[in-house]
Amino acid sequence: MDSQYIQSLLTRYKSGKITSAEILRSLKNFSSESLGFATIDHHRHFRQGFPEVIFCQGKTASQVAQIAKKIVTYKSPLLATRATRQHFTRTKKVIPTAKYYPDARVITANEPRIQKVSKRPILIVTAGTSDIAVAEEAALTARMFGRSTDRLYDVGVAGIHRLLQRSHQLYEASVIIVVAGMDGALPSVIGGMVNVPVIAVPTSTGYGASFNGVAALLTMLNSCAAGVLVVNIDNGFGAGFAASLMTQHL
Amino acid sequence: MDSQYIQSLLTRYKSGKITSAEILRSLKNFSSESLGFATIDHHRHFRQGFPEVIFCQGKTASQVAQIAKKIVTYKSPLLATRATRQHFTRTKKVIPTAKYYPDARVITANEPRIQKVSKRPILIVTAGTSDIAVAEEAALTARMFGRSTDRLYDVGVAGIHRLLQRSHQLYEASVIIVVAGMDGALPSVIGGMVNVPVIAVPTSTGYGASFNGVAALLTMLNSCAAGVLVVNIDNGFGAGFAASLMTQHL
Amino acid sequence: MDSQYIQSLLTRYKSGKITSAEILRSLKNFSSESLGFATIDHHRHFRQGFPEVIFCQGKTASQVAQIAKKIVTYKSPLLATRATRQHFTRTKKVIPTAKYYPDARVITANEPRIQKVSKRPILIVTAGTSDIAVAEEAALTARMFGRSTDRLYDVGVAGIHRLLQRSHQLYEASVIIVVAGMDGALPSVIGGMVNVPVIAVPTSTGYGASFNGVAALLTMLNSCAAGVLVVNIDNGFGAGFAASLMTQHL
Amino acid sequence: MDSQYIQSLLTRYKSGKITSAEILRSLKNFSSESLGFATIDHHRHFRQGFPEVIFCQGKTASQVAQIAKKIVTYKSPLLATRATRQHFTRTKKVIPTAKYYPDARVITANEPRIQKVSKRPILIVTAGTSDIAVAEEAALTARMFGRSTDRLYDVGVAGIHRLLQRSHQLYEASVIIVVAGMDGALPSVIGGMVNVPVIAVPTSTGYGASFNGVAALLTMLNSCAAGVLVVNIDNGFGAGFAASLMTQHL
Amino acid sequence: MDSQYIQSLLTRYKSGKITSAEILRSLKNFSSESLGFATIDHHRHFRQGFPEVIFCQGKTASQVAQIAKKIVTYKSPLLATRATRQHFTRTKKVIPTAKYYPDARVITANEPRIQKVSKRPILIVTAGTSDIAVAEEAALTARMFGRSTDRLYDVGVAGIHRLLQRSHQLYEASVIIVVAGMDGALPSVIGGMVNVPVIAVPTSTGYGASFNGVAALLTMLNSCAAGVLVVNIDNGFGAGFAASLMTQHL
Amino acid sequence: MDSQYIQSLLTRYKSGKITSAEILRSLKNFSSESLGFATIDHHRHFRQGFPEVIFCQGKTASQVAQIAKKIVTYKSPLLATRATRQHFTRTKKVIPTAKYYPDARVITANEPRIQKVSKRPILIVTAGTSDIAVAEEAALTARMFGRSTDRLYDVGVAGIHRLLQRSHQLYEASVIIVVAGMDGALPSVIGGMVNVPVIAVPTSTGYGASFNGVAALLTMLNSCAAGVLVVNIDNGFGAGFAASLMTQHL
Amino acid sequence: MDSQYIQSLLTRYKSGKITSAEILRSLKNFSSESLGFATIDHHRHFRQGFPEVIFCQGKTASQVAQIAKKIVTYKSPLLATRATRQHFTRTKKVIPTAKYYPDARVITANEPRIQKVSKRPILIVTAGTSDIAVAEEAALTARMFGRSTDRLYDVGVAGIHRLLQRSHQLYEASVIIVVAGMDGALPSVIGGMVNVPVIAVPTSTGYGASFNGVAALLTMLNSCAAGVLVVNIDNGFGAGFAASLMTQHL
Amino acid sequence: MDSQYIQSLLTRYKSGKITSAEILRSLKNFSSESLGFATIDHHRHFRQGFPEVIFCQGKTASQVAQIAKKIVTYKSPLLATRATRQHFTRTKKVIPTAKYYPDARVITANEPRIQKVSKRPILIVTAGTSDIAVAEEAALTARMFGRSTDRLYDVGVAGIHRLLQRSHQLYEASVIIVVAGMDGALPSVIGGMVNVPVIAVPTSTGYGASFNGVAALLTMLNSCAAGVLVVNIDNGFGAGFAASLMTQHL
Repeated sequence: MDSQYIQSLLTRYKSGKITSAEILRSLKNFSSESLGFATIDHHRHFRQGFPEVIFCQGKTASQVAQIAKKIVTYKSPLLATRATRQHFTRTKKVIPTAKYYPDARVITANEPRIQKVSKRPILIVTAGTSDIAVAEEAALTARMFGRSTDRLYDVGVAGIHRLLQRSHQLYEASVIIVVAGMDGALPSVIGGMVNVPVIAVPTSTGYGASFNGVAALLTMLNSCAAGVLVVNIDNGFGAGFAASLMTQHL
Repeated sequence: MDSQYIQSLLTRYKSGKITSAEILRSLKNFSSESLGFATIDHHRHFRQGFPEVIFCQGKTASQVAQIAKKIVTYKSPLLATRATRQHFTRTKKVIPTAKYYPDARVITANEPRIQKVSKRPILIVTAGTSDIAVAEEAALTARMFGRSTDRLYDVGVAGIHRLLQRSHQLYEASVIIVVAGMDGALPSVIGGMVNVPVIAVPTSTGYGASFNGVAALLTMLNSCAAGVLVVNIDNGFGAGFAASLMTQHL
Repeated sequence: MDSQYIQSLLTRYKSGKITSAEILRSLKNFSSESLGFATIDHHRHFRQGFPEVIFCQGKTASQVAQIAKKIVTYKSPLLATRATRQHFTRTKKVIPTAKYYPDARVITANEPRIQKVSKRPILIVTAGTSDIAVAEEAALTARMFGRSTDRLYDVGVAGIHRLLQRSHQLYEASVIIVVAGMDGALPSVIGGMVNVPVIAVPTSTGYGASFNGVAALLTMLNSCAAGVLVVNIDNGFGAGFAASLMTQHL
Repeated sequence: MDSQYIQSLLTRYKSGKITSAEILRSLKNFSSESLGFATIDHHRHFRQGFPEVIFCQGKTASQVAQIAKKIVTYKSPLLATRATRQHFTRTKKVIPTAKYYPDARVITANEPRIQKVSKRPILIVTAGTSDIAVAEEAALTARMFGRSTDRLYDVGVAGIHRLLQRSHQLYEASVIIVVAGMDGALPSVIGGMVNVPVIAVPTSTGYGASFNGVAALLTMLNSCAAGVLVVNIDNGFGAGFAASLMTQHL
Repeated sequence: MDSQYIQSLLTRYKSGKITSAEILRSLKNFSSESLGFATIDHHRHFRQGFPEVIFCQGKTASQVAQIAKKIVTYKSPLLATRATRQHFTRTKKVIPTAKYYPDARVITANEPRIQKVSKRPILIVTAGTSDIAVAEEAALTARMFGRSTDRLYDVGVAGIHRLLQRSHQLYEASVIIVVAGMDGALPSVIGGMVNVPVIAVPTSTGYGASFNGVAALLTMLNSCAAGVLVVNIDNGFGAGFAASLMTQHL
Repeated sequence: MDSQYIQSLLTRYKSGKITSAEILRSLKNFSSESLGFATIDHHRHFRQGFPEVIFCQGKTASQVAQIAKKIVTYKSPLLATRATRQHFTRTKKVIPTAKYYPDARVITANEPRIQKVSKRPILIVTAGTSDIAVAEEAALTARMFGRSTDRLYDVGVAGIHRLLQRSHQLYEASVIIVVAGMDGALPSVIGGMVNVPVIAVPTSTGYGASFNGVAALLTMLNSCAAGVLVVNIDNGFGAGFAASLMTQHL
Repeated sequence: MDSQYIQSLLTRYKSGKITSAEILRSLKNFSSESLGFATIDHHRHFRQGFPEVIFCQGKTASQVAQIAKKIVTYKSPLLATRATRQHFTRTKKVIPTAKYYPDARVITANEPRIQKVSKRPILIVTAGTSDIAVAEEAALTARMFGRSTDRLYDVGVAGIHRLLQRSHQLYEASVIIVVAGMDGALPSVIGGMVNVPVIAVPTSTGYGASFNGVAALLTMLNSCAAGVLVVNIDNGFGAGFAASLMTQHL
Repeated sequence: MDSQYIQSLLTRYKSGKITSAEILRSLKNFSSESLGFATIDHHRHFRQGFPEVIFCQGKTASQVAQIAKKIVTYKSPLLATRATRQHFTRTKKVIPTAKYYPDARVITANEPRIQKVSKRPILIVTAGTSDIAVAEEAALTARMFGRSTDRLYDVGVAGIHRLLQRSHQLYEASVIIVVAGMDGALPSVIGGMVNVPVIAVPTSTGYGASFNGVAALLTMLNSCAAGVLVVNIDNGFGAGFAASLMTQHL
């Protein structure tokens, strides 16, 4: 329920298409709506420019479907992350237009149009092939904000020439999301090459002393390149969300 | 040595004020200059929009002064963090215009003019009084980029009304830097209220199971509010730097 | 075997309904009773006001059923936590009145009557939907003490207005149990709003640097709000137990 | 500025002793008052029954004195923890009645009268001699709430008979605060003996694998006795505060 | 191949029952014998009084069976720990007299006779029911040395009277093995009551901040009772082995 | 695509067997080749003397097969580690000569000839039987470089004579790879006996406080014998690779 | 106050040298005696064969002196560990016969006679020179029990022949205390050579990833040699105490 | 006492310059020599090609001087690391030719001649200025083996062009030691560029989540470049020692 939605209610009211009672009914849940097991924050769309996002992990398929249904009621874009196919199947029943991206484990509906490609895109880079699932979650999140995105995958520092050869992609980006596991060294290198913010996403890729992403997380927090910001391990969504906030006025 | 500096060299050459040999001498160290114990990255100003910053911790006063001298040679703004008064005294001798900010432990020189205040400022918030030193480091860093800043100190979540009463300051900001130790809960609350990026800076304030800032760091990485980005413990500089990059086109 | 049970034995003895031999037989296990694999602490009901509680994890269905049987022998209320359906099925065979709460993974029998609702209830709050299982364990534990409870679910700090709108529920409570995973920030906010004890229960909800609840645990231990007390990760039972002790004289 | 203080203002206004302008002036800072480096939460006394407490660590003597001065302005009891003698000396200048307790590292002023001793006291127990400083901080905090307290020091589990001989003290308490370092085992033993809440305070006493109190903290969080609640390492203040909240209606 | 075995070879040689060539063949593997994947340390029986013990975890059923076969070849007692039923089934084929103890996950063969019960036994104590598997591993290990053992199960500190009632068992023991998970507090209490060595075995019993036994391990390492010695988490074997060494001259 | 391959192209061009267009086509991917999900670093063979190695964990069977196919296109030796049988089956379809080593979980193709055995071999030692899988990964990696290897398995420090008896193998080696879990003590002992580099590989063998190899890793990093170098837990590949680099000029 | 002391009281009473009143006065504090800041466990000598030991760290010189005075009152041997020279000076004033061992940081008084050297001694071994302080604490503790001790210092595994040359000392010992920092590997080697208990004492000797003794502690807990028991980091006292308990019947 | 020294003894004996008694006296301490607090491993020079190195931390100046004196007695090169000026002053008294390198905190004597520079040197690289002390320790260690070394300081990944411009130095090296703190990313980049072993040395440079070098250590252990080997934090000595072993046959 963003400002656009409320504006349309008012317009339709003025032109006599709906009554004030209908407006009031719509606004009843403007702030939040309780499902017992969930208190949906409809106000968030108005406040943050994006509606509540469903983190599916730890929720039943039924819970996800019910929350999703409430969100799309107000024409809001739907984004559900960490979704299994079970979550999707149940959601699809109540929202037939819902789409599933298995690589990114994401469910969407009401996808917005993408901004013109002429704008400087959000660039998403991965160090390795195993980091792609997290990168795609970031890319889809940015897409749900209508941002244009660009990708540069498997260019980790063990073969630094792969990155240097594509440096033009780095220089064209408005924000760069760098997804890396194991040594997590890539954001430091990229952070030293560009003058835009770098959002570093550690992944749980690796083994042994990678401690499921802790090694990469620490590397990124200690980056000797300024301008590197960090999100939680495997948190592609958070990176895509923040990158979208940063580019809202570009 | 930023693009402006090089432009001025070229202009003076065209107008016959300097010879090509003089240009070449200037450009010799354009990429990097070796002092034996340091390889100064003069190219960074050109590449990142800000020259190399001196992290004083672990360097002698003499090393800091020598590096500082090299940086100001090319009219670049000087920023030296974690500086003791000893570092400053020595630097002052070679750069008489250098200034010292003891709260923030920062040395500056060649400070740029501040952007018009009419612009949306970078807001710096602290949870407590003990977090102010780190906040000031962030504020001074942003200032060295010429950004306008605003402050909101000691408004931690234990008295949430203090924050709510000042919410207008939150809504006016272009980026918000939130500095907090102990439970590190403030960025989550602010992150849920605004639609701009929030840079969370954990501080080592606290005792016992705060583990010198680790507790706050983890809280922030796990923020249930989207749009929260994290830097290293006590890294006010990194937060100020990233916030400045985000606001360069505003 | 609480003081009431012993009193009833004495009364029946005085009125000639039972012999002294029968009393002695009953009291034989008053202190503790050995099953070989378990030494049941019947004395606990007398000492602590509540009988031994069965922690089912790591026990076989048969062991749980045998211990449960011994507890109900003395009319004591039965509470078994972390119970699977297998544990319940086996227990049901020996205690036909046993009930199972799958959300809370709890088995009960001999449930006491609830205190009058007019009393100030124990309020149980969760930050998210995924925290409800732990919250229900706490609620059921309080219920086994006969306490009245109130619930407020999914009101985490990312949408602080959801909490503020329900603040009256906070002000009516005698004790507040706050259940939260991820950043674990909710107890700090609530702790700063009320003048009753807040029992914080970290949950293993989250991913990456949440470290299965450690992040939330640390947040709570470092709460900048005074009056916040912490129990182990996912320990809804412990929170409900302590809250019941606190409200025994209200 | 608690409800009593506001009541007195109103009474004096009604009787014509003060004007409404004077009331308004008083209430101006009712919610919070800014000192630049601190935003004092005067409203807390009204909201939580106790005014803001000053955590001196990380604050200068001057900052502590200024905040303290503002707190006593409204007749509120003053409690400043982790105070050095330097903090005290400076505070003493602006609040001549201030007192210093070096063992507990606490500054007080406006100490309230103690409740009648006939009431069941808050009992404070330590495992060893080195835990006494933390215990005294808890005791003084409870005293500032006007609670009566009792002490039982150096009765750790390595000589369990010392505790058993004093068990009557345990049975008379309304709440028990147990302070222990090293193995932190004492709260488990006491928790199993009584039917009142036990607040466990781990201390940094110990060496090697005690990890400055982490070992004791973990022991307490994993207590096999129900009814044990935990606060941060060395957090005597938090324990005393919570115990005071628990006993406000006794 | 212990000294007794070698003695018997020599006796039979002297009496002409075997030739020196046969002795030499036997002694060929006296020091160690290679199976390619394993270098069996037959010399250990001679050196340490007990032959190599097979730690089955991480070994295939076939590997276990082959090593076991070699050990029994020299009449040595066989002890294989962490054995699954698969390990046993395969071993049983090559050593028909092998026995399996599913609770302790132990395979044995050539069990020695138990020492007279009149001797002071090794006492094995557990805090809870879930600790019994580890305790039984310890008991069986001691049994393989021919030691007499005594058991006292489920007497954790939450009901300290259960332990005190059985204190005579504590006073009769020559060594006490205390097995406990969760808070791991029991060894401290027992260590303070007796004048014999206490071997503390932390178990992975627990949840949340028990960190799979780390909490109990730290408690035990920090025991405020002197005379407490610690082995690895769940290492019942190590405890039983050390206790047997301690009692070899009693 | 190593220097030999490029030389052969040039030779065939000079002799008229191929055209310059064919050379250019071959060199197009000399630096790197993009498969969308992977950016294959063909240049690595030229740069490092060994082509890109496929780390199969986290990759689908299809991805592994596609990358493998590209690598063998240029006659490069193929090495794929952490490969399941599924990975192999799919790879076998596109590279019929591929071989699978289940113990080492390794796929190879284009295996080089082994260097003459007269050279001093790379010796691979394990402390126990459970460490063999990691050791075999190291051995196969060295073999893919054409190095001769020697093995010494299950000679851990608990039976030090087993190692001392084989010390001649230690003295003949050019480099020694020591693979050990649990206490990880073996590299320290060997490191003190020889004058060649020792590469220590901690393994995740163990339980409890071995923390999946962390205990062994720390032991090795703190080795009191100089000349001990460490790789990640279970990283047999890394050890074999480094040992091969060290012996390239022998 | 051990059984010998009580016996002497009774003897003197029977012979009329003291009155029953005098006996009663002596026994008044038999169980424990309160000094306010300490509850001295006089009963421990009777119960454990050794009186309470003073852990000086965290106690003032005055507190140590007062406790020490009370202990020697009953002819008990005095042992105070982690004692600074300040602790000693103050103690010396009230106990003129007190002795100070600066290497071991130990104060003693009433030292018992040493057992005949013909008995098998407790052997104390160190890996390096820096471990000697801890070793001496162990040796002095054993001495206070009257045990004979033997020393073998600086024989770490990096030069294993140093240990092997002295192996006869290992074979003569009744118990071996092995003190080691850094990699902590020595107890594993010794544990595999002998058939007596090995008490491993990790020390905080080392740097970097030794984590102040944690690396050595983990090595010892994971020792692949059976019969190795572990105490806290730098806990020489605990090792000496346990070794003395083990050898009381030899 | 290396083989050369023994050879010279024999030569002098053959030519009648010394008697066999004199040889025997010399060889008495060939294996090890006891100073009570130290067991000097003279045999190490013969066994490992380098004599025992003195780790001064934790040793008194007197102990260092005595051990040093014994080492130089046999013409062996002396290397003492982590030496303070106090250690040096005392050593200088007994070995007048001793030299002190304050940056590297190293004492030497009997420095060998350096190998011809025409050989491929050991290259020592640092990421920053603060890493130089550790790098110099490595360089001096290699120098004591007679190796030629080359330096490349302050070329961290935040300005990757600084490294790429000097890549020729990388390609000329026989082994590369890379010293880096903070994010520790440099070894991964270098490891991907060269075909020689890379020894990575994490340093304690950094703050906050660098955890005194743990972050850099983990980065290096998880390096995505093969051929990277790791030593302990700040262990320049270990790196220089291993590099020297690797280059002994070049």
